[in-house]
Amino acid sequence: MKIICSKSSLLKSVSIALKAVPSKTTMPILECILMDATTNQIKFTTNDMELGIETIVEGTIEEKGKVALDAKIFYEIIRRLPDNDVTIKTDDKYAATITCEKAKFNIPGKSGEDFAYLPMIEKDEPLTISQYTLKEMIRQTIFSIAVNENNKLMTGELFEIKNNCLKIVSLDGHRISIRKMPLKKDYSDRKVVVPGKTLSEVSKILSGEVDDQVSIYFTKNHILFEFDQTMVVSRLIEGEYFRIDQMLSSDYETKLKINKKEFLDCIDRATLLVREVDKKPIIINITDDDMELRIDSAMGSMNEEIDIEKEGKDIMIGFNPKFLIDALRVIDDETVTIYLVNPKAPCFIRDDEENYTYLILPVNINQNQAR
Amino acid sequence: MKIICSKSSLLKSVSIALKAVPSKTTMPILECILMDATTNQIKFTTNDMELGIETIVEGTIEEKGKVALDAKIFYEIIRRLPDNDVTIKTDDKYAATITCEKAKFNIPGKSGEDFAYLPMIEKDEPLTISQYTLKEMIRQTIFSIAVNENNKLMTGELFEIKNNCLKIVSLDGHRISIRKMPLKKDYSDRKVVVPGKTLSEVSKILSGEVDDQVSIYFTKNHILFEFDQTMVVSRLIEGEYFRIDQMLSSDYETKLKINKKEFLDCIDRATLLVREVDKKPIIINITDDDMELRIDSAMGSMNEEIDIEKEGKDIMIGFNPKFLIDALRVIDDETVTIYLVNPKAPCFIRDDEENYTYLILPVNINQNQAR
Repeated sequence: MKIICSKSSLLKSVSIALKAVPSKTTMPILECILMDATTNQIKFTTNDMELGIETIVEGTIEEKGKVALDAKIFYEIIRRLPDNDVTIKTDDKYAATITCEKAKFNIPGKSGEDFAYLPMIEKDEPLTISQYTLKEMIRQTIFSIAVNENNKLMTGELFEIKNNCLKIVSLDGHRISIRKMPLKKDYSDRKVVVPGKTLSEVSKILSGEVDDQVSIYFTKNHILFEFDQTMVVSRLIEGEYFRIDQMLSSDYETKLKINKKEFLDCIDRATLLVREVDKKPIIINITDDDMELRIDSAMGSMNEEIDIEKEGKDIMIGFNPKFLIDALRVIDDETVTIYLVNPKAPCFIRDDEENYTYLILPVNINQNQAR
Repeated sequence: MKIICSKSSLLKSVSIALKAVPSKTTMPILECILMDATTNQIKFTTNDMELGIETIVEGTIEEKGKVALDAKIFYEIIRRLPDNDVTIKTDDKYAATITCEKAKFNIPGKSGEDFAYLPMIEKDEPLTISQYTLKEMIRQTIFSIAVNENNKLMTGELFEIKNNCLKIVSLDGHRISIRKMPLKKDYSDRKVVVPGKTLSEVSKILSGEVDDQVSIYFTKNHILFEFDQTMVVSRLIEGEYFRIDQMLSSDYETKLKINKKEFLDCIDRATLLVREVDKKPIIINITDDDMELRIDSAMGSMNEEIDIEKEGKDIMIGFNPKFLIDALRVIDDETVTIYLVNPKAPCFIRDDEENYTYLILPVNINQNQAR
């Protein structure tokens, strides 16, 4: 094989492909990037058996062939080369010579025969949305997937298409994040659970431009994201996702509107007195048109008042401050509306159109903490 | 005590003072910042017994007094406050209340009676140079102090004033870095060894502006840096510094001029094939007007040629690439001159005026590596 590509296009493609290279594996072939120039396109493929990426690189094929190279070393070499044309050539033992200007690298390679190709996905009826939208919806929900694998379904996100609306849901047992977006044309109903890891890697590769599109295809076991010169294929998580509709309620006893930035800054200040391990709740005391935030810890105490617009009853309720911060950070509105029922029932942060809903369970506060 | 300062001036002063707060200590008082408003100035002091910082904060004293507060918590609080006036008030039990707009923090404090004040330094004959110069000279030498404490003197830098020239030297047994600067007026000769930690903290606080001055005072056991509103006092390292003059030689067999950026980029590329633990040397082969760089490792091999201007003999020599990179990175010249004697003698990177000299010991290369 002999190919010539510019350093910049190589670097772009390798950076993308690197997202599906596992950091730890017992199968050395998975640490490789497969460079396939057997047809008239140069294709880079990586695959960690859950997630696979294939991306097309612009360049010239001078001699057809393919080779599997250690992905991380290859990336580091390309990254440090001068900004010029790079020639990659392999011999019959798959040793690769990478040349750029006067720099010449030799690294060993593999035939690529035992490289696991990506599964073939039948492409019918793509869901096409802007890369910006997908990237944003992932960012606005991914923080509330569960980290540990006790319940596999919680480590993924629900992608549901229903009534021509895309809904993305994540939950971890303490909170639920929901983002909805109306779709411009008719789609058949779908419901799949996509691994969180896949989504966070996909969102790193997406350009995030409003004008760039991404097409999403679903099969029984896989999801395929197709955009620019890249295809990302991932396994789905099997099983029936949680019935969240019955956890959502539109009843409330207290409704309040608050300036998001003021609220967020105030919680941020309060948390500096809390060590992660302490799990100290922040106490919110709502009286008339005033919200008092309070935290007490071994390091000291803090309190602050914020003006609010309130409908309904007074209430005192405790929260894990991190959960409030996570949700508030991904809401772009200047003012947020919060719905509360009682100190033991979840609170909802929700806009009028329900484009977003963040449910957060409160923390029990005993009489001592409440004072 | 009751003082009122702007958030910005508090933040600036606390950030400076924080540099002398030890991260680990068995003496809790050392983790504190002493706020002294007993006179008509507000002074913040920190002291880790090696290094002490005193800085004056602009603000209003409404009630005289002093208090010692946990420096890190105090810093975190100030950092997160709104950008407005901050009131700090203590009660008779030294509990501090920090108020800014509607936010109110309470943290416990100490009387500060057992706080170790900075040593009194007799200020005669200061060495006054620009903050830019001092910051640069530290940056250009600090990387070659020894990290481990086997030889205490190697963990510091020599500051020598002689013949109206300031010379700063660091060495770690494998290399020596020397920077010299002519002084504008007459100074008496001095020779002290300043702890590397002190210098790295001082250089973080220095503005780095050419027009800002720093005055340096020396006593038998201490060095004092005075600049802006801040005083940094440090113990000196006791003992006789190494006699470096006998290690420096102006004889050479090979002299070469090379483009610094090309050389640096090339070594940088080569090092990606080396794991730190491997200690693989980079092999430099100088023939006629050509320098070949070569590295061989388990990961692969690399070679590259660079044009040079040469006087004298051909030579093949091996180096720890990190040492070359460290020195080349802090040289601002476009072209550097390198002097070599033989494959077992140190190389010198030196400018004609000897404003800088970097001595680097070579690594033995066996016949096998040299090929």
